[in-house]
Amino acid sequence: MTQRVAVIGAGPSGLAQLRAFQSAGEATPIPEVVCFEKQTNWGGLWNYSWRTGTDEYGEPVHGSMYRYLWTNGPKEGLEFADYSFEEHFGKQIASYPPRAVMFDYIEGRVKKAGIRDWIRFSTVVRSVTHDPATDQFTVTVHDLQADRVYSEVFDWVVVASGHFSTPNAPEFPGFDRFAGRIVHAHDFRDACEFTGKDVLIVGTSYSAEDIGSQCWKYGCKSVTVSYRTAPMGFAWPDNWAEVPLLTHVDGRTAHFRDGTSRDVDAIILCTGYRHYFPFLPDGLRLKTANRLAAADLYKGVVYVHNPRLIYLGMQDQWFTFNMFDAQAWYARDIILGRIAVPADTQALLADVAEREAREDAGNDTKYAIKYQGDYVKELIAETDYPSFDVDGACAAFYEWKHHKAHDIMGFRDQSYRSVMTGTMAPAHHTPWREALDDSMETYLRN
Amino acid sequence: MTQRVAVIGAGPSGLAQLRAFQSAGEATPIPEVVCFEKQTNWGGLWNYSWRTGTDEYGEPVHGSMYRYLWTNGPKEGLEFADYSFEEHFGKQIASYPPRAVMFDYIEGRVKKAGIRDWIRFSTVVRSVTHDPATDQFTVTVHDLQADRVYSEVFDWVVVASGHFSTPNAPEFPGFDRFAGRIVHAHDFRDACEFTGKDVLIVGTSYSAEDIGSQCWKYGCKSVTVSYRTAPMGFAWPDNWAEVPLLTHVDGRTAHFRDGTSRDVDAIILCTGYRHYFPFLPDGLRLKTANRLAAADLYKGVVYVHNPRLIYLGMQDQWFTFNMFDAQAWYARDIILGRIAVPADTQALLADVAEREAREDAGNDTKYAIKYQGDYVKELIAETDYPSFDVDGACAAFYEWKHHKAHDIMGFRDQSYRSVMTGTMAPAHHTPWREALDDSMETYLRN
Repeated sequence: MTQRVAVIGAGPSGLAQLRAFQSAGEATPIPEVVCFEKQTNWGGLWNYSWRTGTDEYGEPVHGSMYRYLWTNGPKEGLEFADYSFEEHFGKQIASYPPRAVMFDYIEGRVKKAGIRDWIRFSTVVRSVTHDPATDQFTVTVHDLQADRVYSEVFDWVVVASGHFSTPNAPEFPGFDRFAGRIVHAHDFRDACEFTGKDVLIVGTSYSAEDIGSQCWKYGCKSVTVSYRTAPMGFAWPDNWAEVPLLTHVDGRTAHFRDGTSRDVDAIILCTGYRHYFPFLPDGLRLKTANRLAAADLYKGVVYVHNPRLIYLGMQDQWFTFNMFDAQAWYARDIILGRIAVPADTQALLADVAEREAREDAGNDTKYAIKYQGDYVKELIAETDYPSFDVDGACAAFYEWKHHKAHDIMGFRDQSYRSVMTGTMAPAHHTPWREALDDSMETYLRN
Repeated sequence: MTQRVAVIGAGPSGLAQLRAFQSAGEATPIPEVVCFEKQTNWGGLWNYSWRTGTDEYGEPVHGSMYRYLWTNGPKEGLEFADYSFEEHFGKQIASYPPRAVMFDYIEGRVKKAGIRDWIRFSTVVRSVTHDPATDQFTVTVHDLQADRVYSEVFDWVVVASGHFSTPNAPEFPGFDRFAGRIVHAHDFRDACEFTGKDVLIVGTSYSAEDIGSQCWKYGCKSVTVSYRTAPMGFAWPDNWAEVPLLTHVDGRTAHFRDGTSRDVDAIILCTGYRHYFPFLPDGLRLKTANRLAAADLYKGVVYVHNPRLIYLGMQDQWFTFNMFDAQAWYARDIILGRIAVPADTQALLADVAEREAREDAGNDTKYAIKYQGDYVKELIAETDYPSFDVDGACAAFYEWKHHKAHDIMGFRDQSYRSVMTGTMAPAHHTPWREALDDSMETYLRN
């Protein structure tokens, strides 16, 4: 009997799982893999949509992607070990590609692998249940195009639905009377909407940093960033200020903890995202903070309360694509029986506890980057995912942090060496702050 | 054994169902009624939230309500027959109350009935399944506050989740490159966001009419309304134009079927809503157009393919609150065994077919209003819901249509006679176009 594996989501993590199986399938029988994807196309967050709120079928929009986004870390930290940028583009390219370039790269690998027909698009997972008697899962999905709900049985479920799609949006007093726009980063689409405006950003996450920078680049009047704990502390442009936490708004006036206030036209909540699994019951539903050692995941992937349930990419992330690959190859080998998961739940929990303690022992960025690099190394050592210079990728991240500290609006003009091919990236032809055209055609003209 | 009834949603329809049972319960034993409400408070669409997209728990925001909304039809057409505006406010009030006044009125009746503890707030229904062996339903819900998923068994399910919450949002070529804001009416919140802007509205529905009027009232630069079939044809203000259907956008320029174009800052899609029941499987899920004779609903409420499943308020609507009441009282009496539903599915389908044919036989507004008035009469004749002058309510609707044709920005300054109490509404103290403060306190100062 062929085993059946359900993969939920065809973004970078889900596609990594498909590619992992396809790669093994060249030499050995593999399970039947069915991937359910809510969107009409693959790529997850990298699949840009102008839509906000709900999509053409009334489902919550997955994408948090906005126009003009360039990667906020060097591509040398996320390169696939089995499919380099040079292989895809036929040449080395600059280090901070815009979205369209990244989408093309992600798509290139899976087009080459020929796995598109493993995916059922426009199909949203409504529920997953587990039957202890058979140790199988029933996955109920809604084929949105046919408007048909149906269920199928699987031996394994891989949840790869991401955790940067469902906003965490706190309320501040006066929001119900604010006469301007309030929008979460998830629904931010085009910085040109804010040209000439006074923009208040709440939060100091990557969204805050990048959306603020976008608004500045595309001509907003001012950026005010409100922080809870500490300012980001970069050398911001002159029309940019960091202020303490928002206390309330009154008309168009935003008031802050230090007693100061500012009139603003729009409030952008860069207050993070929630792990959100409306299709999972208690007992299968991951509940974790956004941290490097996610709760309840043995080796960061196996759900300790039901080891036939796999979660990919649920950690907070320095490493991304190649970490998802490391996880997907590892999960694949568990499913293929090549890697054994301890039968004792206590052993699984001990693994999680050890990871948590080790994460908590550090308190700086460099420690965190190395911590996650070590995790990637740990996983790839156990599978046939191509080994690569993880320390070199960490080094690229360290450099990147220095470049940001030096020039927050200029760090994307820097170049790094690929740890996959050893090639140095070319300098991009136009400084980021002057490059208003983010098309692939323009970016690749080096 | 006490029967159990699940009511999904605590908006005007769901609350009508609760009030119907509470009313019967004064004289007779009634089933256990459990109402599941996703929001933190009752009132459905009348429960305003500044949030758009997803709510504080990551669930799709239910509300399509915006600030400064006044009813777009006279309150004399929607008054509860068992709870008049005069009873609630202690006096007769003007005919087009703003949202806060309407919310207070809706809440007044159910506060008086004492049914709040029948409702489980912040609880979203994830799935409903039906077991033919027991003829019972399993309702699985997510208690969002406790983050707990659980299931309970019910003998009847009443779906009262509304159908003006999930946008129908068509795509037009160029939307993915439009450098302004694109928003569906569902996510429109505050007309002040569009002050000084050139606004394009797509659609000619009530949303188009009212959101356009709001934008005009609060100082937008211009309103352009794009129609598919025909313009609304009112005598609009000078900075207002009706143009044929949008063909595409190019930068900030919107192009129309007649070859004309206009530069716009924002596009508001007033393109309607979808019946959306993500918690229902095939076999229980209503699929209908937005029309007066909804598909597959015997007497407009009983799902023909499973008569223990009731749908309230799923029709297109001239009548609202008192029609929901008529339906809820009727459904209650079916559940109490006072009204028999034919056992033969063909008889149920024949009822639907007759309603559809009768609706299709008419082709003007007056016919449609009378058609729905007759439906309300038909239902209330069979229950103890207080009889009222439905023809009088129809007459108020006819008058309203004339008032709109005469002065689209002035019709809300008119008054009508209550068909419940016979009292004439006072003229409001301020013309709608000058009344920028929509608070209850201000409105009631007559």
